[in-house]
Amino acid sequence: MISKNEVKYIQSLYQKKTRNAEGLFIVQGQKLVDELLQNNFTVKKIYAAPEWIKPGTHFHDIIEVTPDELKKISSQQTPNSVLAVAVQKKPEGDPDVLSCVSLVLDGIQDPGNLGTIIRTADWFGIKQIIASHDTVDLYNEKVIQSTMGSFIRVHVWYKNLEEWLPQINVPVFGAMLKGNDVSASLKIKQGVLVIGNESQGIRAPLIPFIHHMLTVPRKGGTESLNAAVAAGIMLSHLVE
Amino acid sequence: MISKNEVKYIQSLYQKKTRNAEGLFIVQGQKLVDELLQNNFTVKKIYAAPEWIKPGTHFHDIIEVTPDELKKISSQQTPNSVLAVAVQKKPEGDPDVLSCVSLVLDGIQDPGNLGTIIRTADWFGIKQIIASHDTVDLYNEKVIQSTMGSFIRVHVWYKNLEEWLPQINVPVFGAMLKGNDVSASLKIKQGVLVIGNESQGIRAPLIPFIHHMLTVPRKGGTESLNAAVAAGIMLSHLVE
Repeated sequence: MISKNEVKYIQSLYQKKTRNAEGLFIVQGQKLVDELLQNNFTVKKIYAAPEWIKPGTHFHDIIEVTPDELKKISSQQTPNSVLAVAVQKKPEGDPDVLSCVSLVLDGIQDPGNLGTIIRTADWFGIKQIIASHDTVDLYNEKVIQSTMGSFIRVHVWYKNLEEWLPQINVPVFGAMLKGNDVSASLKIKQGVLVIGNESQGIRAPLIPFIHHMLTVPRKGGTESLNAAVAAGIMLSHLVE
Repeated sequence: MISKNEVKYIQSLYQKKTRNAEGLFIVQGQKLVDELLQNNFTVKKIYAAPEWIKPGTHFHDIIEVTPDELKKISSQQTPNSVLAVAVQKKPEGDPDVLSCVSLVLDGIQDPGNLGTIIRTADWFGIKQIIASHDTVDLYNEKVIQSTMGSFIRVHVWYKNLEEWLPQINVPVFGAMLKGNDVSASLKIKQGVLVIGNESQGIRAPLIPFIHHMLTVPRKGGTESLNAAVAAGIMLSHLVE
């Protein structure tokens, strides 16, 4: 049983402003909540259908909810048995870009795209993403869901890229519509790959900082690739 | 001005059953509607804000709508000035898989994934997609929107893949979790690449028909790649 006020409070966490003021976020569905509990996140409260609360479920603050109640607090059309409220984690210190490949995101707007980019980065063993301040919020519920759990392993910093990019002393690769064919590129062990905004690509202020413009040569009719697909293709050719 | 009945009728086209019984589909937004009109589709009716109806707009059946009316008939939260109702097109004849590379989809469920796969195929010059009957409907409005117009150039057939795959006399490549590293594969000019369902991958009944199991080697923690990202990576390594 869940009170009206509690329903309202959880619903308010779908707003970026409240969510970040509270320092919390929402994780939905059995698979993701299980992963969250197995990892180093502070979970505040769990709202679950009886079938999720198996004997042996150890958690101090579980509230049993009906399907109707779960629907009220979920953002999903067909919510899957459990929803958790957890504490946001800021990555510790600054990204260390010297000994690995990192991703840089210049204004990714679509939550599904950011989530899929995080998942794709995770697949390729990339643990650091540095995003412009106008990139969609990591803790947006759609971002979290579409990472499929990769937000646990991949750290995301939000930075002023115009200030940050000139400070790093590693090669900067850019995914562009014009550039050298990425499939002819050598594998890299160090550097950052910049992925641009969905409609504008890498925006003008960052262009001077790109050392290597790379492209996936176009053979057909569409004007652009989806940002997550482009990131995946680039990484598959670049990462050792 | 648009009547209540007309609003209801358009809303009913967001249901697969009605949409396919009527043989119609909905296209939203300036860019896509413009592309639709420039190509070989029969457009039945256009509902547009006054700013879309510029002098020189030639179309026999435009209804001017207010922002509120557009919101009622649109599936988008912030609809963009125009919505068209057009006639579905079935691809003519059977796919000709002998002289090119085609994609095969085994049960793609998510409309955004199907749309992005169509857009990605288009980027790589692939014009034919053969999908299982349980793949999401091409004319679902989310599919159409996320193709970004590529549904105009890429043809999609729905077939019983268990019957169809054994009949084609070309190499069948499968995107799998286990297989040969796709980046070590030779480029191909002929054959089909099978992309599996989001949670199950290529399903058991189709496995016997896969001649070449290919994979994108995993370096990190997530269990799988998004289907559209996997398709993009595979195509970037396989297509000449």
